[in-house]
Amino acid sequence: MTTEKSSSFVSVERLRSFIASGLSCAGLPVADANKVAALMAEADLQGSDGHGVIRLPQYVKRIQAGGINTQPHIRAVTERAAMALVDGDNGMGHLVMSYATELAIDKARTAGVAWVGARASNHAGPASLYARMPIAHDMIGLYFAVGNANHLPPWGGMEMLLSTNPIAVGIPGPDGQSVVLDMATTVAAYGKVKAKAKRGEQMPEGWMIDRQGKPLTDPKRAEEGFLLPIGAHKGYGLALIVGLLAGTLNGAAMGRDVVDFNHDHVTPTNTGQAILVIDLKAFGEPAFFKAAVNQLANDIHQSQRLPGVDRIWLPGEQSQERRERYSKTGIPVSAGLLAELDALAKQLHIATLL
Amino acid sequence: MTTEKSSSFVSVERLRSFIASGLSCAGLPVADANKVAALMAEADLQGSDGHGVIRLPQYVKRIQAGGINTQPHIRAVTERAAMALVDGDNGMGHLVMSYATELAIDKARTAGVAWVGARASNHAGPASLYARMPIAHDMIGLYFAVGNANHLPPWGGMEMLLSTNPIAVGIPGPDGQSVVLDMATTVAAYGKVKAKAKRGEQMPEGWMIDRQGKPLTDPKRAEEGFLLPIGAHKGYGLALIVGLLAGTLNGAAMGRDVVDFNHDHVTPTNTGQAILVIDLKAFGEPAFFKAAVNQLANDIHQSQRLPGVDRIWLPGEQSQERRERYSKTGIPVSAGLLAELDALAKQLHIATLL
Repeated sequence: MTTEKSSSFVSVERLRSFIASGLSCAGLPVADANKVAALMAEADLQGSDGHGVIRLPQYVKRIQAGGINTQPHIRAVTERAAMALVDGDNGMGHLVMSYATELAIDKARTAGVAWVGARASNHAGPASLYARMPIAHDMIGLYFAVGNANHLPPWGGMEMLLSTNPIAVGIPGPDGQSVVLDMATTVAAYGKVKAKAKRGEQMPEGWMIDRQGKPLTDPKRAEEGFLLPIGAHKGYGLALIVGLLAGTLNGAAMGRDVVDFNHDHVTPTNTGQAILVIDLKAFGEPAFFKAAVNQLANDIHQSQRLPGVDRIWLPGEQSQERRERYSKTGIPVSAGLLAELDALAKQLHIATLL
Repeated sequence: MTTEKSSSFVSVERLRSFIASGLSCAGLPVADANKVAALMAEADLQGSDGHGVIRLPQYVKRIQAGGINTQPHIRAVTERAAMALVDGDNGMGHLVMSYATELAIDKARTAGVAWVGARASNHAGPASLYARMPIAHDMIGLYFAVGNANHLPPWGGMEMLLSTNPIAVGIPGPDGQSVVLDMATTVAAYGKVKAKAKRGEQMPEGWMIDRQGKPLTDPKRAEEGFLLPIGAHKGYGLALIVGLLAGTLNGAAMGRDVVDFNHDHVTPTNTGQAILVIDLKAFGEPAFFKAAVNQLANDIHQSQRLPGVDRIWLPGEQSQERRERYSKTGIPVSAGLLAELDALAKQLHIATLL
């Protein structure tokens, strides 16, 4: 999360219109630029600031380099009652995954459950964006994605054949109190390592190891080591399975085929993602399910805490709190990021963010 | 895994018929006893020995105490093209989940993907049994279950509101070389703690904490502490989500409602499980998918290893190796377990295992 000290604050509306201008000047059609901008600003609003406006310079660079198809024909290439395989035609990932999620919601409405996979997609922002979309329809969302750079070796190895392949799940609760899990299958996301390096801090043991298998705690030496999966071999297994489901099954990149989009702005990434949607109404009365979620949430909140623990959180509550707070205060943007966005604005001849 | 030293070895056929005799004498109809016995013996054959014949005395006790319905009407109470909700009518979990998985396979054949949830089920053995079933049909299986005793508090808490809720995934590979993940969402399963106590060994730090949040390494003090989730708050989130999907969604027990089946042999457990089946054929040619899995497996096997590591494993390879080995040598049964089974045989007036 951006430290709020020494940050400027910007309204979500202003952030959205700035991003939309940037994307549209770079070459996206206005309607698409607006759609992507809304999702990117939503990422910042919930505090997923590694996946919001901070990615704009990189996206613009890729669009300008021809690494993104700005006129994609996003379509289902195979369909059955409860599934579809979507080809994103190398369009922006946000557009591909919005399309895929809407299709899954539509199919789940009749089939009860639907799975839509995507290939030839691109980085689509935080996983929770798509897992949360079905909630408004009284549906559960599960999202799986192949990350856009490999940072994780198989357990016992040192060749980085896997990414931090995230899992996100959105589960409707009463009065907008949903349970939303969004997690990388590594102990720390790579963005957190970079943030530690920027702040000159050391990493705790358990985030990374070096090529001898020893703990690596200096984030400036990150290139000499690898991220560690959660639960050792278990997290490796999860990262592999997520990659097979979201990548291999869709004919998308996985393993050695994954393109590191931080260093290569031209090669199509053939990113794979997948969304599973479950309609609560197929199982019974949604209000009944939500009341059970509420009861469980209360039991968890009110349960006995370890010494020194102020509050027990449910997955997604901290994001929800930020969403509400930033809607009032504006979204914090660090001085460093602001300077970068100002330079981008100048390059694109658009108004600066603030 | 059972230590093979000081163990007797029994063929899978003999083990199966012993379990079937035991269950049938306890009160299960012969066909059901045979079906459950086959799955329990399969668990032992793959080395999931915490979930095989070791559970027989407990199952027999529950059946005899009236805690299991021996004449259940297992049926789908709600259905759509791609889902069903199965009521297990408090039958043996193996029967309920076999029924649910077969139904999901059947629905996936036309819908492409299917999800079947179960309530009023019971302990069904290792998660991988059901995740593996779709593989023979060129389908992927994902299995989720609510564990039958709560050992995990929410992150930061000390009230054990959650179980070790496992996830299992079976993914077809070429020539029977499938990828099969089967993992609890805690660092160690509770059975491993009990095994350490039996052997008089200490646990490594990271398995459990005490009520002060300090590492607990003496397994004899296990009752004073709690299991730790993988990846800290992430594993807590996973355990919670699995519980919501496999329990709450189906109207099955979750949170405070979970019955500890180790101590209570009478109260219906209302166990919840769920299986998701994905038909490879809906996405393309299964042979093409399997070749991609094979390529990835080769890349992983041949990738550079950390110092001191002999081999990199794929999830499920060690179980497959045991399956092949025990088919030849027989399945190891420890002297302690054998004595327990002999006592059971005497009580039921059936032939002893060996």
